[in-house]
Amino acid sequence: MKRTCYIGELNEADLGRSVTLQGWVNRRRDLGGLIFLELRDRSGVVQVEVEPDSPAFAAADPLRAEYVVEVEGRFQARPEGQRKGGLADYEVIASRVEVLNAAKTPPFELDKGDAVAEDIRLKYRYLDLRRGEMQRGLLLRSKAVAAVTAFLDAAGFVQVETPMLTKSTPEGARDFLVPSRLNPGEFYALPQSPQLFKQLLMIAGFDRYYQLARCFRDEDLRADRQPDFTQLDMEMSFVTQEDVLEVQEQLLAHVFREVLGVALPLPFPRLSYRDAMDRYGSDKPDLRFDSAFVDVTDLFRGGEFAAFAGAETVKVLAAPELTRKQIDELERVARQHGARGLAWLRRDGEGFTGGISKFVGAQTAALLERTGVEPGGTLLFAAGEWKKAVTALGAVRLALRDLFALAAAGPQFHVSWVLDFPQLEFDEDSGSWTYMHHPFTAPHPDDVGLFGTERQGEMRAQAYDLVLNGFEIGGGSIRIHDPAVQARMFQAIGFSEAEAQAKFGFFLDALAYGTPPHGGIAWGFDRLVMVMAGAASIREVIAFPKNNRGADLMAEAPSPVEPAQLAEAGVGVLPQD
Amino acid sequence: MKRTCYIGELNEADLGRSVTLQGWVNRRRDLGGLIFLELRDRSGVVQVEVEPDSPAFAAADPLRAEYVVEVEGRFQARPEGQRKGGLADYEVIASRVEVLNAAKTPPFELDKGDAVAEDIRLKYRYLDLRRGEMQRGLLLRSKAVAAVTAFLDAAGFVQVETPMLTKSTPEGARDFLVPSRLNPGEFYALPQSPQLFKQLLMIAGFDRYYQLARCFRDEDLRADRQPDFTQLDMEMSFVTQEDVLEVQEQLLAHVFREVLGVALPLPFPRLSYRDAMDRYGSDKPDLRFDSAFVDVTDLFRGGEFAAFAGAETVKVLAAPELTRKQIDELERVARQHGARGLAWLRRDGEGFTGGISKFVGAQTAALLERTGVEPGGTLLFAAGEWKKAVTALGAVRLALRDLFALAAAGPQFHVSWVLDFPQLEFDEDSGSWTYMHHPFTAPHPDDVGLFGTERQGEMRAQAYDLVLNGFEIGGGSIRIHDPAVQARMFQAIGFSEAEAQAKFGFFLDALAYGTPPHGGIAWGFDRLVMVMAGAASIREVIAFPKNNRGADLMAEAPSPVEPAQLAEAGVGVLPQD
Repeated sequence: MKRTCYIGELNEADLGRSVTLQGWVNRRRDLGGLIFLELRDRSGVVQVEVEPDSPAFAAADPLRAEYVVEVEGRFQARPEGQRKGGLADYEVIASRVEVLNAAKTPPFELDKGDAVAEDIRLKYRYLDLRRGEMQRGLLLRSKAVAAVTAFLDAAGFVQVETPMLTKSTPEGARDFLVPSRLNPGEFYALPQSPQLFKQLLMIAGFDRYYQLARCFRDEDLRADRQPDFTQLDMEMSFVTQEDVLEVQEQLLAHVFREVLGVALPLPFPRLSYRDAMDRYGSDKPDLRFDSAFVDVTDLFRGGEFAAFAGAETVKVLAAPELTRKQIDELERVARQHGARGLAWLRRDGEGFTGGISKFVGAQTAALLERTGVEPGGTLLFAAGEWKKAVTALGAVRLALRDLFALAAAGPQFHVSWVLDFPQLEFDEDSGSWTYMHHPFTAPHPDDVGLFGTERQGEMRAQAYDLVLNGFEIGGGSIRIHDPAVQARMFQAIGFSEAEAQAKFGFFLDALAYGTPPHGGIAWGFDRLVMVMAGAASIREVIAFPKNNRGADLMAEAPSPVEPAQLAEAGVGVLPQD
Repeated sequence: MKRTCYIGELNEADLGRSVTLQGWVNRRRDLGGLIFLELRDRSGVVQVEVEPDSPAFAAADPLRAEYVVEVEGRFQARPEGQRKGGLADYEVIASRVEVLNAAKTPPFELDKGDAVAEDIRLKYRYLDLRRGEMQRGLLLRSKAVAAVTAFLDAAGFVQVETPMLTKSTPEGARDFLVPSRLNPGEFYALPQSPQLFKQLLMIAGFDRYYQLARCFRDEDLRADRQPDFTQLDMEMSFVTQEDVLEVQEQLLAHVFREVLGVALPLPFPRLSYRDAMDRYGSDKPDLRFDSAFVDVTDLFRGGEFAAFAGAETVKVLAAPELTRKQIDELERVARQHGARGLAWLRRDGEGFTGGISKFVGAQTAALLERTGVEPGGTLLFAAGEWKKAVTALGAVRLALRDLFALAAAGPQFHVSWVLDFPQLEFDEDSGSWTYMHHPFTAPHPDDVGLFGTERQGEMRAQAYDLVLNGFEIGGGSIRIHDPAVQARMFQAIGFSEAEAQAKFGFFLDALAYGTPPHGGIAWGFDRLVMVMAGAASIREVIAFPKNNRGADLMAEAPSPVEPAQLAEAGVGVLPQD
């Protein structure tokens, strides 16, 4: 017997008809001799009523939560007084119930899944995934995959699978290793990203490439990381940065339209890295709300307030009225992010009280005017070395967002580009210059001349990040295709030719055989879907995630293996300290 | 400067227009003071003519093969006498040539790539992939991915990614192991297939699932295997075998139509496993041609020809006229596939000569009539135990196909289902019964009663293989969802409850919490694309394949790794014998 449709597809047109539905008993109640079932499939829940004289009654009687059933019956509207809108306005009067499978009592009530310890949810993931919230997240993810595929295919992108068993490289994060039985003593590495392979595909002439790529990094797992994750990886030949950004905007707009019915305004606003940091203290600013910093360095320079007088930067952020406790909490945030404290002022009429008010006299009028702080409102200051100061105040800005739901008043989704990242960073630890993203990122054409000069720290890269609601959901760059520029880049980061060859060997060889200008981007697909679904963690949009010890609690992986398996793989377990 | 279009998109409508093209110099010739370039991109090749007085001449002069260039010029028809059809009828008269990148001389001529040793092609894969044949194969593959995704998404299938780092199981092929740094002494396994996870997704209520899944098996690599390969993996709930077959037929027809413009005739013909073996000696018969076996067991039973008289099965295959050398070669094939020899007869008028003709007297008329062998044609015999006899003759049938291009006269693509595989196989080595596919395959409902009887070897499984041109491109089954049937299956293959729990633990737990009836299939995607592309090996439709030692000759993987990496991973290399 085939079902008429998914439960969620039932509608007015089905009223009075006999329907056949299949799914799980979400709940069973007995009332006045009748059995009421909530029948659930992936699309929705509908009430099924089994009357005592129904031929279905005998089959329905033993039903319990999570039994699998097929129900046939008349689809009808519920009595007027009981309507609440949606599927709850309808019910099915069962004429036939067939038990397709029984079920043990679940270890937790699915309806209360949110409140269940995550370890239990992960151990019984197949039950956790029955919850509507989890199903919606994964269905949304699937729709996003289909939308991405359709768009990129139509736009001439070629889907290519890159190797999963590849070479370990000393660069970047730690590799997961895979012993090779056929080549004893040798190891594959699982790919951290298809970066080199996608560039090789451009060298091979594929022109436009994409892949939903599984990537692996053996890092210590922070709260919201997974040892393996999914990247939407793309690369294009014969393009400028502008070409890449344009295609990306069309693609993301397509995905939001197809999956959520949301029209993203195009083009996305653009900020330079410098401006993003300077105004919001983040290279992935949440721009659903503004609350930009105001620069007041000049007001205090050389003045009597010693803490600000000599600071490279003094920034101020206008906040609503804050309690002393809230200010203390924000100060803790500032300290966690590198500030030595959090100076503050409360506006009182046309002046300020509290905090550093005794040091602020001459600056009062200018502070009022530049910040527009409201009466009773608070000004929060960060001062010191520019990057440290803005970073700390950026963290305070996000804490204020969470405290006052500042983002709620803005658009549901805000997408922007952050551009003009630095080409080079000075690494304090090693006392040398290094690349910010990877050593194949092309510098801005106007800045190439700065290589090797004292101003090479000012060089801008042709690199770009895609930012959604304060999350970096994509990052990429135009790559170097000119061997002369590549040589200057290696020089700038202190790689000799021999070192470069040792680290990037075959890839540098490939670059010499006719490399087109090219660039690309990769999206953090798990994170994008998380934000689109309004989920709190990427684990909510991954079917079978690992916990923060890298363990799959359901499948019980990792696990010890048979000595014979290890012997075949040619490895042994080292004794633990 | 943006290109007007890909080269392959140029057409009549562009005649007389100025076009901008980008690509690689395929070839350069100098003739009568002019420079002729073949310009190549992924879509095609066009001739570019650079006249000596052209402003483009100076830039064109240093060009060599594989330089990357941008060309602007007038698109025009070639002189009448030089037209051959297609792009060769046109040329571009260059007004501007810009060198975008130089290229070293490639280590082999791309045009002659076919003749180059595969190791060289694999080492310089980025050059090998520039060849039109390779590009077409991978573009076809990409189109197939998009077609599959669009179809399955529209049909309500949910794309779900299953874990790449999972649990090692002693069943099936050898696992690739991945040491877990966070859990010293423990290992992940790379997935051999998402089988259990896709069934868990059905238990979780996703109803319809698909994934292009990367799978891993650490097997000794035969000629056309890869350590990692791609499966199009699907599973459906609340379905019968008939439902699965129907969706699969629609899907495959969609893919062929979208990708190749080929209309596959629906429904696909169906053979039982028994018939496929009995008539063609293969459970994946190539049915582009018929050449079915004829059963002649009865003609020889108890007769004077001892080799046939007592045989369980005597099959005969009618072949064209064969030389003695060809017969010897076919006999070798038969022996390789388990036969003790290959008896034969040549038709001579209304009788037979050669081979076993002196033992064939009474049977002559019947043999002529049953086989319809042509005058001069050959009859080839296999006799003995049924499975051995038909298997050997099946190999001979395929050798005849290759010898006489028998498939060429048939349809380009022939798809069929092979159904009713045995539920259980008797394993001669262990002297016990075992499952044929996996222990969760559901038996045919009519045959469940045979579990535990003497006739359990006759039980049919609800299992099905999809066969294209003699390749198994898909296989699947309806799964057991009834715990009572599962228990009988485990009993039949001699698993105690404790053993079953030890081997399949968490999955058996999951089955008890409300499992819907379900079934699915997985396609060998690499092989499907290979056949669709007319390629000789799956390596031709994989961008960066491994060689038969499991090595990536370009990236030089696998490779030794730093001792510190091994120490972190908690493993050491065992000394080699």
